[in-house]
Amino acid sequence: MNCPIPISQYSQILLAHGGGGKLTQELVDKLFRPAFHNPALAAGHDGALITLPQQRMAFTTDSYVIHPLFFPGGDIGSLSVYGTVNDLAMCGAKPLYLSAGFILEEGLMMETLWKVVLSMKDACERVGVQLVTGDTKVVNQGKGDGIFINTAGVGIMEHDEMIGPDQILPGDCILINGDIGRHGMAVMAEREGLQFESSIQSDAAPLHGLVQDLIQAGIEIHCLRDLTRGGLGGAVHELAQTRGLEFYLEQKNILVRQDVQGACEILGLEPLQVANEGRLIVIVPEKDKDRAVSVMQKNEMGTEARMIGHVTQGEKPRVLISSLIGTTRILDRPSGEPLPRIC
Amino acid sequence: MNCPIPISQYSQILLAHGGGGKLTQELVDKLFRPAFHNPALAAGHDGALITLPQQRMAFTTDSYVIHPLFFPGGDIGSLSVYGTVNDLAMCGAKPLYLSAGFILEEGLMMETLWKVVLSMKDACERVGVQLVTGDTKVVNQGKGDGIFINTAGVGIMEHDEMIGPDQILPGDCILINGDIGRHGMAVMAEREGLQFESSIQSDAAPLHGLVQDLIQAGIEIHCLRDLTRGGLGGAVHELAQTRGLEFYLEQKNILVRQDVQGACEILGLEPLQVANEGRLIVIVPEKDKDRAVSVMQKNEMGTEARMIGHVTQGEKPRVLISSLIGTTRILDRPSGEPLPRIC
Repeated sequence: MNCPIPISQYSQILLAHGGGGKLTQELVDKLFRPAFHNPALAAGHDGALITLPQQRMAFTTDSYVIHPLFFPGGDIGSLSVYGTVNDLAMCGAKPLYLSAGFILEEGLMMETLWKVVLSMKDACERVGVQLVTGDTKVVNQGKGDGIFINTAGVGIMEHDEMIGPDQILPGDCILINGDIGRHGMAVMAEREGLQFESSIQSDAAPLHGLVQDLIQAGIEIHCLRDLTRGGLGGAVHELAQTRGLEFYLEQKNILVRQDVQGACEILGLEPLQVANEGRLIVIVPEKDKDRAVSVMQKNEMGTEARMIGHVTQGEKPRVLISSLIGTTRILDRPSGEPLPRIC
Repeated sequence: MNCPIPISQYSQILLAHGGGGKLTQELVDKLFRPAFHNPALAAGHDGALITLPQQRMAFTTDSYVIHPLFFPGGDIGSLSVYGTVNDLAMCGAKPLYLSAGFILEEGLMMETLWKVVLSMKDACERVGVQLVTGDTKVVNQGKGDGIFINTAGVGIMEHDEMIGPDQILPGDCILINGDIGRHGMAVMAEREGLQFESSIQSDAAPLHGLVQDLIQAGIEIHCLRDLTRGGLGGAVHELAQTRGLEFYLEQKNILVRQDVQGACEILGLEPLQVANEGRLIVIVPEKDKDRAVSVMQKNEMGTEARMIGHVTQGEKPRVLISSLIGTTRILDRPSGEPLPRIC
């Protein structure tokens, strides 16, 4: 699909595209509404009127400021859909509706915006969610960075399971759906212009289907957490602190692709702290762990699913990790910023 | 309340505050969560689990990029609550829950963030909404502008009225709840350092109470629209186009304060196109207009409510306005950007 706003007329975003006048209307009518067409959006209202199939719902939000906008395996558009869909999935919810708030920098190429919008549209179709309400603002050149996107999401809870950090118990097993570190390293390699033998592709993908499979199989899920900013290490740290328990990881079971490991070494990064966008941990009681791994492996998002550790009462809330040679160390949480603007 | 993050430690926002590590956690635990404390936020989940009192809901989003962050009568914090609350109210919904996505610029003063967060908290309490889920990102210095905020809102429909542009009929009356142009001029005066005899205060305020009063009084509301970007002129233009009808306004009934009129003349602006943040038009059938005005006047947001025009079949979708001396002209829609970054 070609960009529907004639290039000869306005090839770049102007401040006026955010001013609420003719150009704002043109952007909405020619670019956003046709891409995401659905009844709620077509109504041209200040918000979307929707009827949920039930009253118990999940609500979440995330802003996306990733730089660069396009990277191997994805772009800010698909990321802004999958990221918020995954946050809903982590609550155990079925994602249904998204909102989108665009903050555009004056001078952005119209073609770039169109590419991003098409990518969001494709991602929405893949997941089966509708983008029902939106907003566009334009900031002066030098006061933004191309495109920032916020998406908020609404999903429904189709089950009575309680899923959350407070459900985690000592003895629970920690499962993961694949290798780690690819998203962060794909973005960093693109940003820094690093060349590797094979290009590292981001793992960005929607995880709601995998979660639905686990729920439908009757797995007793205690907690789900996607491994975005802060990576696997950040996620288990946060859960250890929130729940007040000790988390124990086994390095030998944690998959890191060789090219990702190499890129991390070049940049002085720890793969455990690198962001992923298609990885989650699933925390389940011991009795359900084998069945859960088997369900995950049958889903395309979990072919390499495995158990990587467990939860214990422990001495205090912290994360321990056993090395490849069998020694155990405390995994510290980075205070710094290993990878800025990775999502 | 003093800023809860010790000034001596981090007086400014660092990139690491958006990195998903210790500093992100500190920002959430010490600043955001205490300010907005509620059970959904306290759960520390990837999203908020909420149970709506019913299934018919409204969902909306808006990003706020206003410059400067503080202006007479408000700031970006309260604006980001009232603006989204008002969008829900325009759907006829009762606002219940908000999300907040912050995009902070590296180097932002922590005290500034805290002032904005406190203002959001006060605004939420005034309206009676809960901020239940959020996200914070940090961009490099020079790639943002202090603070951008996105809020998305969820509200419920407590009635069976159909309210929206498609309900507007020829013969309907156009009512307004007060004078126009104050928000835009308050922000512009602050930004440009203009001095007037009396400082112009923004009209920013929540409108959900006024709308609830109209609904409870059994007024047959055909459409509601707040008069933000593009002002009164922009709003009626958009409705005329969407509905395919002619809108007729009477200048003599449209209130513009003298200082606002003066400021507009200095800056070469048309008050009809200046943004408001506490003004709406209410479109009702002729039979209900007097009662609707009377209900509005009893609410503190509508003491100067009045009728300013009506809708006709007309020749084509457009907006006509009669001048003070009785002549009628076509009100054009500005294609340009009269006031950038006003909300």
